[in-house]
Amino acid sequence: MRTLALAFDLGGTELRGALVERGGDVIARVSEQTMAEAGSEAVIGRIIALAGKLLGDHPQAKVIGIGACAPGPLDPKAGIVIGPPTLSGWHNVPMIDILSRQFGLPVRLENDANAAALGEWRYGAGRGSESLVFVTVSTGIGGGVIADGHIYHGRRGLAAEIGHMTITGEGDRCFCGNVGCFEAVASGTALGRRATQLTAPGDGSALRRLSGNGDVSARHVVEAARAGDAAARDLVDAEARWLGIGFTNLLHLYSPEVIVMGGGLSNGFDLLAPGIRATIDERAMQAYRDVPIVPAELGDRAGLVGAASLILWEGEPGTALSMVQDEGADTARTA
Amino acid sequence: MRTLALAFDLGGTELRGALVERGGDVIARVSEQTMAEAGSEAVIGRIIALAGKLLGDHPQAKVIGIGACAPGPLDPKAGIVIGPPTLSGWHNVPMIDILSRQFGLPVRLENDANAAALGEWRYGAGRGSESLVFVTVSTGIGGGVIADGHIYHGRRGLAAEIGHMTITGEGDRCFCGNVGCFEAVASGTALGRRATQLTAPGDGSALRRLSGNGDVSARHVVEAARAGDAAARDLVDAEARWLGIGFTNLLHLYSPEVIVMGGGLSNGFDLLAPGIRATIDERAMQAYRDVPIVPAELGDRAGLVGAASLILWEGEPGTALSMVQDEGADTARTA
Repeated sequence: MRTLALAFDLGGTELRGALVERGGDVIARVSEQTMAEAGSEAVIGRIIALAGKLLGDHPQAKVIGIGACAPGPLDPKAGIVIGPPTLSGWHNVPMIDILSRQFGLPVRLENDANAAALGEWRYGAGRGSESLVFVTVSTGIGGGVIADGHIYHGRRGLAAEIGHMTITGEGDRCFCGNVGCFEAVASGTALGRRATQLTAPGDGSALRRLSGNGDVSARHVVEAARAGDAAARDLVDAEARWLGIGFTNLLHLYSPEVIVMGGGLSNGFDLLAPGIRATIDERAMQAYRDVPIVPAELGDRAGLVGAASLILWEGEPGTALSMVQDEGADTARTA
Repeated sequence: MRTLALAFDLGGTELRGALVERGGDVIARVSEQTMAEAGSEAVIGRIIALAGKLLGDHPQAKVIGIGACAPGPLDPKAGIVIGPPTLSGWHNVPMIDILSRQFGLPVRLENDANAAALGEWRYGAGRGSESLVFVTVSTGIGGGVIADGHIYHGRRGLAAEIGHMTITGEGDRCFCGNVGCFEAVASGTALGRRATQLTAPGDGSALRRLSGNGDVSARHVVEAARAGDAAARDLVDAEARWLGIGFTNLLHLYSPEVIVMGGGLSNGFDLLAPGIRATIDERAMQAYRDVPIVPAELGDRAGLVGAASLILWEGEPGTALSMVQDEGADTARTA
């Protein structure tokens, strides 16, 4: 029987659960709406029910613990979800305490971007690297940093808030109140907004045809650019330039071995990559220019398998890593 | 007899040597012009001569190793000075090999900003913290990051190139070729340039009186602001705002327990601090606003004592730290 972890990825809209084995394979997967507005107790009740379903469907599973991820800010060491903007009514919810009492299993908690970084590092596009920066470009921009073989947490687990790195003095105001945040100019939302401003309902543009004359989204821009639409291509080029400016900063600041780009906009990675690379070649200091920028491989399961790895791999948070051994090899373990 | 380290701080203009004891006290200190243009062999000859002088003057010193710092880029693990712009003719100089062969002692090498960060962390303004960001604001802007109890190196030791973090789209072009580098808008050089542009020789301004009608430097601006000159105060306020924007990024990206500001411009820290703090309070996300911003304490000996600590404290680079024990306690060491 394989050793498994229960994994949960608690998002603002979707709650996902899975059984994950040590190599990163997802054995079973369930999901439902988070309905965060019902409050933390109701959502935790739903997590418990999902766990019951997964375990009931796999009665032979040898589950050794629970790895969970949730939106930040959260304190991974204390195991507390502090109060994410996307989970209204959540304030200092002690997730680890609640889940470990319920299941009598070890529980680990990590913020979603860090969990996804861990997933891509251990099982995805960053396999084999010593360090990486994972950037998720979607509604907003988030990130996680792996350095010297573990998640870079910083004080209270708050490092790598890369979406709110100021990179310019221009553009629309960010929801955080500033002008010039990486997220405010380079997120999928920002790309969609630029496309919407560039066009008008009923103007016959490819972008508005794709959007049914509603607001244009980043997805429409990528789709139109892929079909060869010139306006969409220009928008993609401008987007790639903003991403390249931000990525150059990440190279200078973290000096990773690789940058992994995930999130919804990574669907257009092939279109964005040349512009990102050209911007880095123009702006990064020589010694950083050969660092690969690659698309994420795990899609929306990165957070789940990363969270599971908190249980299936020893050592997080903050210590050197060694894989949990198979039970047959347990007696050979030295630590 | 106290256990000591020989320390060298190899700068573009000045070469400093010292004998440092474990608590960070400098027992003896020497310096001379680097004369980098004479080439690496001549400079290393001068390092060896300085070491001979320090050791000759202190024949009873129990020196257990040599810690050196030099401008980046350098590879701290391989012990190689790669090719700093301020040391012309230096290309891949194997400092550790050369010095350890010469003296038969362990040698450690670190880049100067990282060494200063280490010095301030172990002996100066960052004592007792788990993590810090050290920022030196002078001709340029450099930095070093301590995270989880050790220097954050990244690939090839190149992390924390914070002077070349893009924070705006405006301002003069940086020597690196970009517009908007933190260094290009917030260094002492940038402040002096703004003051020079604002005034003219013979205009009777306080700034030009201080500069003898030559170009105005950051030091003149600080001096005039301290004397109450309104134009200088405005320049200081604008400088503090740029520093605050950059420091906010550092909070979001590294989440340190403290930011330590050193370099020549830290002479004006008391004048800059209110504007830096106001900018952080305006721009940083709530959870980062209570992080202290403090002036460096060690001045130009930060690099020396930090380099010495590479020898006097075990574990760098990259591992957990424990202080080297007194010789009397050596037998009790478990590792």
